[in-house]
Amino acid sequence: MGSHNETSSMMNPLEPEEFRRQAHLVVDFLADYYSNIEKYPVCSQVEPGYLTKSMPKSAPLKPEPIETILQDVQKHIIPGITHWQSPGFFGYFQTNGSTGNFLGEMLLTGFNTAGFNWLASPAATELEMIVTEWILELLQLPKSFSFSSNGGGVIHGSTCESFVCTLIAAREKKLKQLGADQRGDLCKLVVYCSDQTHFSLQKACQVVGISPDNVRSIQTKKSVNFQLSPDALLTAIESDVRAGLIPLYLCLTLGTTPTTAVDPLLTLSEIAQRYHIWTHVDAAYAGSACICPEFRHFLDGVEGATSFSFNPHKWFLTTLDCCCLWVKDQTDLTNALSNDPELLKNKASDSKQVVDYKNWQIALSRRFRAMKLWMVLRSYGVTGLQQVIRKHVKLAQHLEAQLSADGNFEVVVPRNFATVCFRVSPLALTSVPNGSTNDDLANHLTRTLLESLNKTGLVYMTHAVIEGIYVIRVAIGATLTDEKHVNMLWDMVQEHASGLLAKYADIK
Amino acid sequence: MGSHNETSSMMNPLEPEEFRRQAHLVVDFLADYYSNIEKYPVCSQVEPGYLTKSMPKSAPLKPEPIETILQDVQKHIIPGITHWQSPGFFGYFQTNGSTGNFLGEMLLTGFNTAGFNWLASPAATELEMIVTEWILELLQLPKSFSFSSNGGGVIHGSTCESFVCTLIAAREKKLKQLGADQRGDLCKLVVYCSDQTHFSLQKACQVVGISPDNVRSIQTKKSVNFQLSPDALLTAIESDVRAGLIPLYLCLTLGTTPTTAVDPLLTLSEIAQRYHIWTHVDAAYAGSACICPEFRHFLDGVEGATSFSFNPHKWFLTTLDCCCLWVKDQTDLTNALSNDPELLKNKASDSKQVVDYKNWQIALSRRFRAMKLWMVLRSYGVTGLQQVIRKHVKLAQHLEAQLSADGNFEVVVPRNFATVCFRVSPLALTSVPNGSTNDDLANHLTRTLLESLNKTGLVYMTHAVIEGIYVIRVAIGATLTDEKHVNMLWDMVQEHASGLLAKYADIK
Repeated sequence: MGSHNETSSMMNPLEPEEFRRQAHLVVDFLADYYSNIEKYPVCSQVEPGYLTKSMPKSAPLKPEPIETILQDVQKHIIPGITHWQSPGFFGYFQTNGSTGNFLGEMLLTGFNTAGFNWLASPAATELEMIVTEWILELLQLPKSFSFSSNGGGVIHGSTCESFVCTLIAAREKKLKQLGADQRGDLCKLVVYCSDQTHFSLQKACQVVGISPDNVRSIQTKKSVNFQLSPDALLTAIESDVRAGLIPLYLCLTLGTTPTTAVDPLLTLSEIAQRYHIWTHVDAAYAGSACICPEFRHFLDGVEGATSFSFNPHKWFLTTLDCCCLWVKDQTDLTNALSNDPELLKNKASDSKQVVDYKNWQIALSRRFRAMKLWMVLRSYGVTGLQQVIRKHVKLAQHLEAQLSADGNFEVVVPRNFATVCFRVSPLALTSVPNGSTNDDLANHLTRTLLESLNKTGLVYMTHAVIEGIYVIRVAIGATLTDEKHVNMLWDMVQEHASGLLAKYADIK
Repeated sequence: MGSHNETSSMMNPLEPEEFRRQAHLVVDFLADYYSNIEKYPVCSQVEPGYLTKSMPKSAPLKPEPIETILQDVQKHIIPGITHWQSPGFFGYFQTNGSTGNFLGEMLLTGFNTAGFNWLASPAATELEMIVTEWILELLQLPKSFSFSSNGGGVIHGSTCESFVCTLIAAREKKLKQLGADQRGDLCKLVVYCSDQTHFSLQKACQVVGISPDNVRSIQTKKSVNFQLSPDALLTAIESDVRAGLIPLYLCLTLGTTPTTAVDPLLTLSEIAQRYHIWTHVDAAYAGSACICPEFRHFLDGVEGATSFSFNPHKWFLTTLDCCCLWVKDQTDLTNALSNDPELLKNKASDSKQVVDYKNWQIALSRRFRAMKLWMVLRSYGVTGLQQVIRKHVKLAQHLEAQLSADGNFEVVVPRNFATVCFRVSPLALTSVPNGSTNDDLANHLTRTLLESLNKTGLVYMTHAVIEGIYVIRVAIGATLTDEKHVNMLWDMVQEHASGLLAKYADIK
């Protein structure tokens, strides 16, 4: 066919033997990367624009060999990577990868199915149902969240996606209940959370059209460990009801981002129920810990929630993107997010005997994310996953004990999981500049301490500000982090703090 | 530390040598999968619930060896896969993977950075800027979409995400212009599209709180190849304005899903400009083709758009998820989607000299998707990518010619790219049952033909219904699809249709 034989002389971008050869090269590249990862500064130290300067202005015209490309990855990309997989990474919350997860990502990318409905890849849908039921059992979530009771689990890309989807589900349900003139009532809907709730909730509200004025970010206090107060919630709800507004959605957190605080789920969700408010429990970080019986009590009261989510891509040996969401009534999601275009009509969907996950999420297409979660669960087993959680918690306990025993430091809130929040103790400050308080100086020194530690490139931590107090957060959870790395961190913290305190001891 | 040495005896889920060994096994598993892919039925033939029956009810307690897990993938997962990478896959639109892309996915998974802002991984942000600028040049998009003119590109997970983000940007901009009492006006905003626009737009409108009643899905006609009519658009806008509604957003399509129709971009965007309507051009499928000079004319008029998106995960050798979006004014996105929480504050962001992509998308966290797109561009070069597009178009031209020359078939709309829409020709039907028309019978026979072809397991196609006509869509674009596969398809089409027509020749 055609006038010349271009087709037959063509490259085949999925030729199996070339695929094999090149992919083996990259496996070795990455294995070497993990072997050498401690040689790189944890947080990248490049300047803005570094890569633009070294890359050509245009895409290459001709194909380039993988060997050349990998050299460029080593030379140009790796210096600009902040090494989240480094054992010295203690920033934000970790995203801890694993070999089992990596194999799952390889398989799902290799198959590259777009499992929007059951038929588009039955294995993708059914494995997602199986894996979310497995985890439901591991977390001892109530049966009401199971597919067997008209609930069910789905894997989203992020907590924000879970916020958006549950907010829409709640919004549509509420507007339907209110009846005919519904759309106009959109501006009366109110969402409740605490000032410790992840800021993604604010964005999710913005996305679904809830006015920022109608998001009640209720103030929390250090004196009660930054938990959302039932009294304050009730006061806010009653005030809104009196003003003619409509309470819609309450977000509770199991392990807040600043300090890993845990809201009292049972009391708060009971208040929400009284006002027909949708209660979502966001356990993005700490949900993973609840597979250990000794931490399961943090989830007590989850039976009062309408929906629950956690991120295996934080502390469950799984890479981005992977957020598991369960709902008690799957029709809440599907009523709000379904479409049924002619193009996708098929007998399995028509039979209503299958789950079509496109109706549980924002986008149509979806990656086969269940594959990686399944590979993780099988590669490490429940005991292996529990071992990882316990190791990190133990390392954090140890660090907390050392900080508490040292007069130069203050552990600002009690540690719940594997994240420790500390600062330079105001009590350690013998003299303070005029017009300044011990707290001001402690903030300044803690900030300076963090900068000086991060600058070494050996560790990376981030900060939070809570009730005006600047704290260093040490989130222990990178897969490669071991006892020696936390010991090294503790040595560094003592040494850098001593230097700083000595410098400030002579002030004024 | 601690009372027993649990920590030291622990497994390391990222131990480099075990990573290396297991990942090499999976490389070989996938290379063999591609070698054998033609042995599997293209569309999975399992029954609903097949996997639930064969999997244990609970997660395994103990770790399992990779060899056992891979046996289960072969035995239980692969039969439930619809093989989108098979050369016999002609359904929906393809998602065509490649070795270069696969290597990119390996690297990005291996690094597993969460590049929400520049500092979280400078390479991830800067490579995304570089790659989107490269593609901007390849597509000859106007400079106004470039970072150099306050525009810029971002990689989203899906077209639906691009719809949502541009809708929010348009919504917030419009509400701000309208002034103080803004939120109440949300229910007056109107979105325009055609009845051929991808149904994801409807969902995106639902997500951002635009009433389904305010989405104008303007009817198109076969006589003008299902293009959105400027007159019909103008009529709809004027009618809404008279009714006190506020025109907000127009979605134009380059390569619609049912038939790959191309809306007249210039004329339509000029109308939109007159009414201060945001114009988005969705080139999810056909955008890739426009890197070939001979297809670039389809993009003429894109200079009138406010935003433009296409999916490398369809026809650009890249796997899910990868949708590139460009905007002319990046502050439209960042005004609507930014947040600035204390936890993420850093000097680079404060300097305003860097891009923080979290403010260009829904979620906070994001995968390092630029890596795979960069690997694709370098592995195949512009010429390689053009070669792939041209091969598929040529195969489609050939199939179209054969169908047109055969009296048993009708090519229902002219082919623009590499997708052919055909049916059993009503003219080939010598007798028709009482009370039925030639068109009714053609619909019935075309549907039966599709089912019988798909049932062979050798090929997989899907359908569309346009102006009451049931058509088979042949989307040619899987990476492994070659001349022999399209020839096989054509032989099968003729054979199955002859059988069907013979059976129906004696009706009445």
